[in-house]
Amino acid sequence: MSGRQNKITNSDAPFAYEGLARVIHEKARLGILASLATHREGLAFGDLKQLCALTDGNLNRHLQVLQEAGMVEIRKSTTDNRPQTWCQLTVLGRSRFDQYIEVLEQVVRDALHASQPEAAAAKGLQEGLSPA
Amino acid sequence: MSGRQNKITNSDAPFAYEGLARVIHEKARLGILASLATHREGLAFGDLKQLCALTDGNLNRHLQVLQEAGMVEIRKSTTDNRPQTWCQLTVLGRSRFDQYIEVLEQVVRDALHASQPEAAAAKGLQEGLSPA
Repeated sequence: MSGRQNKITNSDAPFAYEGLARVIHEKARLGILASLATHREGLAFGDLKQLCALTDGNLNRHLQVLQEAGMVEIRKSTTDNRPQTWCQLTVLGRSRFDQYIEVLEQVVRDALHASQPEAAAAKGLQEGLSPA
Repeated sequence: MSGRQNKITNSDAPFAYEGLARVIHEKARLGILASLATHREGLAFGDLKQLCALTDGNLNRHLQVLQEAGMVEIRKSTTDNRPQTWCQLTVLGRSRFDQYIEVLEQVVRDALHASQPEAAAAKGLQEGLSPA
């Protein structure tokens, strides 16, 4: 094994952003998870739909993906004879969302560094990676 | 038109994150754009491929999408009889990437607020949006 291969993958490919899990990164699901993270007690389906500007069908579809991933819990109940669907982040959901946000913070840091010209060579240019 | 409809969409749906343009938000393209934003002078195809941990085929495919969107410029040249492909962010590409990053910062801020329990009701709970 060469010295290069001994390096950890992340330092070899600092812009691969492997932690941006697809189940979370999808734009609508990111909005759903951020809504639920901000409302710890959970949200009614209708409120979640409005906060994320989603249709019933789209919200249902994305909630199902998140439920299958164990990240969101969905409870159906009846209040005053009206059916209600209640959505809440699970402990796993919160933990995975927090991990995702850490990677997102890294993306933002990279981008902010990029606005400083002197930082152009600060990240990712390693041995054998030459801009010329 | 009701008072509700007079409000701007963003305040009605603070988690819609409409600024997360699909052409940029795709994980591999986000990595490509962050790489190029960090290397203002541009990057050779091979270096970009390594920084983002992409295959030739995938990098080619995503570069084409970014080129068609006017965000990336691709130049082919020959140095010492070896063909080289050079990739660089356009002015439009940098501007759109910066706008995207502003929305990403908002996502991170929302998530960080969400870790503070007292902030649970701080965003998005408007008239008619009740958690109970």
